[in-house]
Amino acid sequence: MFVFYLYFCYWVLEGSFTSEHVHLQSLCLSSQFVSSASFYLYILPNGYSQRMRDLLKWFRYQMQYVMEQKASSGPSIVLFLRWHCYWHWLSSVYICSAVQLLNKNLLASTSAYITVAAFLLGALCSGVAGYVGMWVSVRANVRVSSAARRSAREALQIAVRAGGFSALVVVGMAVIGVAILYATFYVWLGVDSPGSMKVTDLPLLLVGYGFGASFVALFAQLGGGIYTKAADVGADLVGKVEQGIPEDDPRNPAVIADLVGDNVGDCAARGADLFESIAAEIISAMILGGTMAKRCKIEDPSGFILFPLVVHSFDLIISSVGILSIKSTRDSSVKSPMEDPMAILQKGYSITIFLAVLTFVASTYWMLYTEQAPSAWVHFALCGLVGITTAYIFVWITQYYTDYKHGPVRALALASSTGHGTNIIAGVSLGLEATALPVLVISVSIVSAFWLGNTSGLVDEAGNPTGGLFGTAVATMGMLSTAAYVLTMDMFGPIADNAGGIVEMSQQPESVREITDVLDAVGNTTKATTKGFAIGSAALASFLLFSAYMDEVATFAREPFTQVDIAIPEVFVGGLLGSMLIFLFSAWACSAVGWTAQEVVKEVRRQFIERPGIMDYKEKPDYGRCVAIVASASLIEMIKPGVLAIISPIVVGVVFRILGHYTGHPLLGAKVVAAMLMFATVSGILMALFLNTAGGAWDNAKKYIETGAYGGKGSDCHKAAITGDTVGDPFKDTAGPSLHVLIKMLATITLVMAPVFL
Amino acid sequence: MFVFYLYFCYWVLEGSFTSEHVHLQSLCLSSQFVSSASFYLYILPNGYSQRMRDLLKWFRYQMQYVMEQKASSGPSIVLFLRWHCYWHWLSSVYICSAVQLLNKNLLASTSAYITVAAFLLGALCSGVAGYVGMWVSVRANVRVSSAARRSAREALQIAVRAGGFSALVVVGMAVIGVAILYATFYVWLGVDSPGSMKVTDLPLLLVGYGFGASFVALFAQLGGGIYTKAADVGADLVGKVEQGIPEDDPRNPAVIADLVGDNVGDCAARGADLFESIAAEIISAMILGGTMAKRCKIEDPSGFILFPLVVHSFDLIISSVGILSIKSTRDSSVKSPMEDPMAILQKGYSITIFLAVLTFVASTYWMLYTEQAPSAWVHFALCGLVGITTAYIFVWITQYYTDYKHGPVRALALASSTGHGTNIIAGVSLGLEATALPVLVISVSIVSAFWLGNTSGLVDEAGNPTGGLFGTAVATMGMLSTAAYVLTMDMFGPIADNAGGIVEMSQQPESVREITDVLDAVGNTTKATTKGFAIGSAALASFLLFSAYMDEVATFAREPFTQVDIAIPEVFVGGLLGSMLIFLFSAWACSAVGWTAQEVVKEVRRQFIERPGIMDYKEKPDYGRCVAIVASASLIEMIKPGVLAIISPIVVGVVFRILGHYTGHPLLGAKVVAAMLMFATVSGILMALFLNTAGGAWDNAKKYIETGAYGGKGSDCHKAAITGDTVGDPFKDTAGPSLHVLIKMLATITLVMAPVFL
Repeated sequence: MFVFYLYFCYWVLEGSFTSEHVHLQSLCLSSQFVSSASFYLYILPNGYSQRMRDLLKWFRYQMQYVMEQKASSGPSIVLFLRWHCYWHWLSSVYICSAVQLLNKNLLASTSAYITVAAFLLGALCSGVAGYVGMWVSVRANVRVSSAARRSAREALQIAVRAGGFSALVVVGMAVIGVAILYATFYVWLGVDSPGSMKVTDLPLLLVGYGFGASFVALFAQLGGGIYTKAADVGADLVGKVEQGIPEDDPRNPAVIADLVGDNVGDCAARGADLFESIAAEIISAMILGGTMAKRCKIEDPSGFILFPLVVHSFDLIISSVGILSIKSTRDSSVKSPMEDPMAILQKGYSITIFLAVLTFVASTYWMLYTEQAPSAWVHFALCGLVGITTAYIFVWITQYYTDYKHGPVRALALASSTGHGTNIIAGVSLGLEATALPVLVISVSIVSAFWLGNTSGLVDEAGNPTGGLFGTAVATMGMLSTAAYVLTMDMFGPIADNAGGIVEMSQQPESVREITDVLDAVGNTTKATTKGFAIGSAALASFLLFSAYMDEVATFAREPFTQVDIAIPEVFVGGLLGSMLIFLFSAWACSAVGWTAQEVVKEVRRQFIERPGIMDYKEKPDYGRCVAIVASASLIEMIKPGVLAIISPIVVGVVFRILGHYTGHPLLGAKVVAAMLMFATVSGILMALFLNTAGGAWDNAKKYIETGAYGGKGSDCHKAAITGDTVGDPFKDTAGPSLHVLIKMLATITLVMAPVFL
Repeated sequence: MFVFYLYFCYWVLEGSFTSEHVHLQSLCLSSQFVSSASFYLYILPNGYSQRMRDLLKWFRYQMQYVMEQKASSGPSIVLFLRWHCYWHWLSSVYICSAVQLLNKNLLASTSAYITVAAFLLGALCSGVAGYVGMWVSVRANVRVSSAARRSAREALQIAVRAGGFSALVVVGMAVIGVAILYATFYVWLGVDSPGSMKVTDLPLLLVGYGFGASFVALFAQLGGGIYTKAADVGADLVGKVEQGIPEDDPRNPAVIADLVGDNVGDCAARGADLFESIAAEIISAMILGGTMAKRCKIEDPSGFILFPLVVHSFDLIISSVGILSIKSTRDSSVKSPMEDPMAILQKGYSITIFLAVLTFVASTYWMLYTEQAPSAWVHFALCGLVGITTAYIFVWITQYYTDYKHGPVRALALASSTGHGTNIIAGVSLGLEATALPVLVISVSIVSAFWLGNTSGLVDEAGNPTGGLFGTAVATMGMLSTAAYVLTMDMFGPIADNAGGIVEMSQQPESVREITDVLDAVGNTTKATTKGFAIGSAALASFLLFSAYMDEVATFAREPFTQVDIAIPEVFVGGLLGSMLIFLFSAWACSAVGWTAQEVVKEVRRQFIERPGIMDYKEKPDYGRCVAIVASASLIEMIKPGVLAIISPIVVGVVFRILGHYTGHPLLGAKVVAAMLMFATVSGILMALFLNTAGGAWDNAKKYIETGAYGGKGSDCHKAAITGDTVGDPFKDTAGPSLHVLIKMLATITLVMAPVFL
């Protein structure tokens, strides 16, 4: 791959690009591989004691045990592969025929094959991003638990760096995938030579990549989310509530399924999720940049088109610096008093943000300076600052609502003391209330970024200001300009969680468990804040993707498409259906977890009754059965919501296209889909904020009670808090994150399918 | 009042109306009073045994006991009155100044005083509607419990007729209030005489009435909902779960608060809610009818304007027939085998629907026949049928999701067997899923009614079809054409519930309690179906209210306002804020119940500890303390969400008006508010459907388990189901119904405040 990459750099430099931007960009891209490679090299050479090797062996034994149950888990993997192939085939054929049918801008077959190729590459990269996340995680877990036996700081460092490795690969792949496609199309189609397409239209060909990425991410997130949370809920309900054994106790037959689930759901799924976020955001920003450059007749539009790639390349560098700033303090005593890991992570984040501001301002000057509007780059730099500030505030708000240092979670813990019912009511209200501040922040960001862009001095031929939409695009890039660091903090969570599991199962001393518990609690908060960050960027990007869709429809229909008027009944109905889609999708995602968890509960109960020796460590529980149940259930249950998400915008678009055809409104299908997209986005943002925050708060309220508040572990209050935690699990790790993907997938699917609605 | 009414009829007949429609309408209105009066006369003369008098005495003693705790409950009533006056005064002054400032169509002061007078009348009528509901309910309770000692059928009949009485008064008041205002303005302002306003603009003056009605209904629903559910949740959590005593046991210190709450929350609040639904829908349909008649230059527009009043007058008659069809079977043996009360109520509903179809078709022919488009009335009659069908399907869908005869609730009961957590997850998914079918039905209704109206043949001067919006208005009227019967079924619920409470507290034999239990279960279902009906009509009316708002803005701004383009960032932000408003409002409504319930739990626990004699009936619990807690808490807690609902559209409108002023978009404020209204409506419909259905399903899943399924009363499964029920209580009886009112109040507040946004 590295050879291929060098070849690519050579090709780009020798090829048709002439501006200095390309050099800059190549430099940034190279840095990614260097930094990634150094990371892994850094993690590897840590020495491990004999005990550590035993640990590893034990863990491998457990995994092997699971694998031996091929009779049950084997078929489900085959089923998964079959479904995967089937879906790829179906989508490819569909996209191919749809695009072939309707896009007459290029030679039809060329355009169709381009979209399909981009789709497949996007899907592949998304899959790889998920796989890398999981691969690194399962290898880092044991290392972190070993390090926890020596010092907390070292455990933190290893977990962060392992997370950082996956994060850099994910972000790097998104950048490199888009760059390769862009360069390939540029050379292959002879862009900007007389008679062929303009460079400003080129980004429209990349939408297949974004759709491919979303497509895989949706199923990864859904399947992974159902897998991990069904196992978790099932294990907790019987283990903690009924039998009173601690979390991750090896006697619990669902414990291996739970640990495997953390990797599948949190690492693999979040990797694919963030990968598609960044890919979708880059592509839509490129489309908007191209459209704006065309309208303003800027002589060298490549700066506006390639700007997102440069921003994310810088992201790789500055996030690396932030991650490297979290150092091990080997010179201090081995059992030094523990610092607050959250403070250390926050310090790294502050460094990253500081560097992001510097590099962002520099990039805007290098890429967006144009003689037509000499002060435009200042305005866009300010847009970027709006985005970075929004990201910071979002992280802060999420922490306020989900960290037990603050009022809301403490009030939730207090509500647990009056029973299960009041705990749930308080959690639901907390989650619903937590939607308010983020929405206010996003509203201010959208309006101010649009205003800054509009006053940038860029005007179209008629003299109207045109930079507004690009301003919101730049703000989104600003928000995502620290994505790699934030993703690192997220990946850190499941690694710490699993390390805790290994410590518990290998019966390490209490002091080691304490260290991993602290890391686990911090991981919960960082996981919640990443979700806040992801939904914030989705919210800001929503307006972007929506505008890109309208641009694309206008290009295909060869008539202006600038209004989505919800005073038209059909358009309003589209909006109603869009919002409903979010509710129904969340329902199916949650109920999938609920049903599977019930199966796990029954299985675990059965094992405890049939093998009474389990509780005295005399018999081994049958871990494989639980793994098989959640594996096959997650593959089957993800089909219903996944198909709903993919099919419904297409069905609505086609139905209203036909209706519009008979009532004389040619653009009706496209307009209804636009309204559906907007309403779904708004409802999706709110619903995801609600689900994520409520789930995170319930989890940490339980953790707060476990520190001894309101009776501590084992009290009635704790039992009520566990109920809340169980309810929050599918909220925050299945339905919520799937909604992030859903929002962006709706946007990319409408982008790809736009020709079908006309 | 009757004398006043006769005078009014005389005035109308002698006055400026000349068409035969007025005779028809007067006839319908008179019938209301006759039928209402006959009802109450029918209920009164039932003889009561000595035992009944004892019961009455006992109940009065309890009430008196409560009243004696003046030290605590007294101040809260004073507080309520003070708030009430303060709000009325503030709103009046504000509306007065706002309208005075900006409306230059009439003499400014005249217009302002008209709106204020209408507001005050609307508020008064809404208050009276709530009061009547409560007044009848507390008197009917004891009669129903007495009748239950003789036969189930008689108990059912009395409960239904008592409910019917309130329902007829509520609907009748809405009709008569609008009619009085309309006639007064017509005569006083000399409408249609040269130089003064046109009759087609007259309905715009009525918006104050709708706002007044919504205003009081919002606080009635919020305050009542918090009151009743805080008491209910508190009583259940300690009484049923911790102490294991049955529901409504006199030993529970919160039992009187719970019973009083049923009247306050269900009867008074639902009365005010339905009152403002009907009033808002009548007024907006009149505005749209007037606008359409003006555009089409119909020579006698009074038919189109007065049509909604006629439909609702017929509603009173046909619903009376439906209610009277539920007869007592005195000739059968006293202890006859019980019929299914649901089937009896359904039979009455079928009769009412059949009559509604007949009268609706007749009304469209009489009122909407015009020579310009001879077949228009057929199209509008079909629109009405669309509405009636929608109502029927809505009731059916709600029953499917909330009645334990069907799959969803049974699956929910099954989920309770694996614990509290899976019960909550299953309930939340059920509620979210239950939004899908209603939205599909509403979408089909809106599009088809619009299409039917558009093809009616009514065209404006330019030849464009204009009847579409009026078509959706007629569909809404069709939906609400059986409102009185549906409201009867709703009022029946709390009466049966309270009768059960009285039977339990007066220690009647088990057989009597069985009868009231069956009635109570049916009441739960009818309460849920009414909510489905109310939200369905709100959904259908939303598009109507929205269009009325756009019409009004166009009238004030004297420029066309036909588009709300969500591709403009500010407008999109308005939508985002609108949806957020729904989430935040629901959060505050739920958390108000949660906090108050926690207070009740603590108080009840304290009493059980400090007075150990309570459990052996040796000591009397201090009922008054619990009543005082919920009374004062509900008054204080309703302020935050209530103020949010009233202030936020005004703030958003004014902020964006100022922003639009500086960026050169004069209509920006109005557009942003329009988007806010639309998004809030869509989110509100979905959220209310979710909350109502989930709550109803949890309640009935508990009832299903109490019939003996999955272990029956007292099992772990039952405890999990009680948790679900407790969570569902604020969902279905506080936040959900408040959202119905909120949706319509947002519409009426924007209608009234429209001049401020320009």
